[in-house]
Amino acid sequence: MSTAPDRSNLLMIKGAPFNAETPIEGLRQELTPTVLHYVRSNFDLPDHDGTLTIGGAVERPLTLSLAELRALGEETLTVTLECAGNGRVGLMPLPTGEPWTGQAVGTATWTGVPLRRVLEEAGPRASGVEVAFTGADHGHYKGGADIHFVRSLSVARALDPATGVLIAWAMNGEPLNADHGAPLRLLVPGWYGMGAVKWLARIEVLEAPYQGQFQTKSYVFEWPDRAWEPVTAMRPRALITAPVEDETLSPGIVTVRGKAWSGGGPITAVEVSIDGAGEWQPATLAPPTGENIWQEWSFDWTLGQQEIGRHVVRARATDAAGATQPDMPEWNRLGYGNNAAQVLVVYVR
Amino acid sequence: MSTAPDRSNLLMIKGAPFNAETPIEGLRQELTPTVLHYVRSNFDLPDHDGTLTIGGAVERPLTLSLAELRALGEETLTVTLECAGNGRVGLMPLPTGEPWTGQAVGTATWTGVPLRRVLEEAGPRASGVEVAFTGADHGHYKGGADIHFVRSLSVARALDPATGVLIAWAMNGEPLNADHGAPLRLLVPGWYGMGAVKWLARIEVLEAPYQGQFQTKSYVFEWPDRAWEPVTAMRPRALITAPVEDETLSPGIVTVRGKAWSGGGPITAVEVSIDGAGEWQPATLAPPTGENIWQEWSFDWTLGQQEIGRHVVRARATDAAGATQPDMPEWNRLGYGNNAAQVLVVYVR
Repeated sequence: MSTAPDRSNLLMIKGAPFNAETPIEGLRQELTPTVLHYVRSNFDLPDHDGTLTIGGAVERPLTLSLAELRALGEETLTVTLECAGNGRVGLMPLPTGEPWTGQAVGTATWTGVPLRRVLEEAGPRASGVEVAFTGADHGHYKGGADIHFVRSLSVARALDPATGVLIAWAMNGEPLNADHGAPLRLLVPGWYGMGAVKWLARIEVLEAPYQGQFQTKSYVFEWPDRAWEPVTAMRPRALITAPVEDETLSPGIVTVRGKAWSGGGPITAVEVSIDGAGEWQPATLAPPTGENIWQEWSFDWTLGQQEIGRHVVRARATDAAGATQPDMPEWNRLGYGNNAAQVLVVYVR
Repeated sequence: MSTAPDRSNLLMIKGAPFNAETPIEGLRQELTPTVLHYVRSNFDLPDHDGTLTIGGAVERPLTLSLAELRALGEETLTVTLECAGNGRVGLMPLPTGEPWTGQAVGTATWTGVPLRRVLEEAGPRASGVEVAFTGADHGHYKGGADIHFVRSLSVARALDPATGVLIAWAMNGEPLNADHGAPLRLLVPGWYGMGAVKWLARIEVLEAPYQGQFQTKSYVFEWPDRAWEPVTAMRPRALITAPVEDETLSPGIVTVRGKAWSGGGPITAVEVSIDGAGEWQPATLAPPTGENIWQEWSFDWTLGQQEIGRHVVRARATDAAGATQPDMPEWNRLGYGNNAAQVLVVYVR
C-alpha cells in the first residue's frame, strides 16, 4: 500500500473504517485538495496486488498492471463526487449509517483510462448484461459473511463513451492514496460516490444482473410511499460555503457564496431566500467549466441597520433536467440523497 | 419606565422590537437569571402609567396602583415559559416570524397577585364570557392599523384557582424590567408565552369572545391537514444543555443533560437516542419541583475507543398526558409549537 494518507484536516466521522467529511473552509476552492476531500469507506483499508483482472463473459480474460492500463491511454477528468448519504443527519427518524451532515462532497481531477477501452481489450460477449466491479476491500458486513464491496453498471453504460466512466490511478495529479482507493478506483461521473469503487481489483462481465449487498440492499431509495429505486445520479444541491453557521456579519454588502451541482445536468439556477416566507431570489451562477463539475454561485446581500439580529439564509439549486431542491428532506429508510435546501443561521451585529 | 435592561448576555434575534434567545450556557441552572431569560416583544417598549384598569362587564370598574395590587395579596410562582415560536427554524417551508432555534425558554420566579383576586374585586357580571388583557405596547402591525397586543382567556379559566394565572410585578425577586413587561405582566403557567401579556394596562370582561389579531390570527396552529387550533399549552420538549452542538468529547463517561417541560402535566420520561436507528434509552429524570417547572434529566453515555468519530444525540420527553415529542416537526403555516426531538452532532476524539 501507499504511505498513510494525511487525515488531519478532515472532520472524522468514524476511525475504522475511516470516514470523514470536509470542513466547510475546504469547500471554497474550485478543486478540493486531496487532504481535504471527503473519504467514505465501507471496510478497512485492504491489501491490493496492484493488478486489475477482467473476466467473466469476455472473449479475452486479462490481468493488467498499472503500466499496461496506462498504455491503453490516459485521460484526466474533473469530477464532483458526493456521498449518497450526504445530509443523512437531516432525516428523521434518523437512519442507520454514517451521520454525514452536508460536506461529504468534493471536486478533484482524476486521471486514468476510460473503462470502455479496458472492456474492449477483453471483448465483452454479447450475452453480457452488466459489468461488476469488485474492490479489494472486504469485511463481515453487519456481523455476517465476509463480503467485498462490489457494484455493477449495465454493459451499455459501461461502454458508452458519453458516460465518462474512468478507471483512475491519480487524483489531483498524484497517485491515489490509500483512503481514495490506491492503486485503482472507478469513477462514475454524475453519480453518487457508491459507484466509484475504490481499490478496484476485478471487473467481471455478468450474464445476469448483479444482486449483491451494495447493489440491491444498500444504496436503494426505500421510499415509504412509492416503489423503491436504486441510488444513481446526484440530485441537485447548492452548498453555502460562506458565511458559515452562526457567523456574525457586519452591515454592508455580504456575499453569500457556494457551490452547486447535480448529476441531472448542469445547474441552471441557484436561488437564495432570506428569512421566513422570503421570496427565492436569483443568485449569480457561474457557467459550468465542464460536465459533472460543481458551479460557483454568489448572492450579494445588503445588510442595513434594520437587519441587526438573527437571519436564516437558504439556497437551492435547479438543474437542466428541471429538478429543484425541496424545502423538506425526502425521508427514505437508509437515508440517501437528502438534498433539502440548506438552512443557515447567521447574525448581523 | 425602568432603567434599560441589560441585554448584553442574550442572542439577539431582532433589535426593535427587541427579541432575543438565551445562550445554551444560560439554560443549565434551575432558575434562569433575568439577564439570560429570553425576550419576546411584538412592539417597541411602550410607556405605561403604572396603573391597571379593570372594566367591561364588571360590577365595579377599577383602576389599581401597584400598591393597591400588592394589598390584594402576594404570591410567588416559579414558571417555565417558552415562546410559541421556539424551534420555528426547524419548519420548512420556513414560516414568517422570529427565527427562534430552540432556546426561547426559561424558568423564573414571578411575584404578583392571582388574577382571580383582582377580578373578584371588580366583580365580573354573569354575562361575561372572556377576559381580555391589553398590553400598553402597540404599533402598526404589518403596516396596518395601530393595534395593541391583546390576548384573552375564558372567564372560567381566569377565575379558576387551579390555573395559577398571575399578575406579576417582580421576576426573580426584582421589579420587572422593561423587556419583561414592567411594571405588570400576566403569567399563564403551562401555556406558551403569548398568553403572558407584558406591560399589562387594562383588563376587560367581555360578553363575546375576543377576536383580535393576536387571539384569532396570530398564535393559531394553521395545520395543513386538519382543523386549525389555538396555541395554548406548551407541548412536551426536552432540551439538551450539555454537551453542545459540535462539541468534542473525550472517551469515558459523558453525562448528557438538560431540561424537559410540558404544559400537559409533569414530564414522566425522557429518553436519549445515540446515532441512527438507535434504541430510545431512558434518561434519569428528576421529579418535578412544582407545577409548570422544567425538570432536570441526565443520561450517562459511555464512550470507548470504538466511539471515536462523530455521533448524533437526540432526546425526547413524554408528559403525564402521554404526549411524546415527534421525530419530525409538525409544520404549520405560522410556525408554532415545533417540539420535534432535538438533534445534536458531537465528536469523540
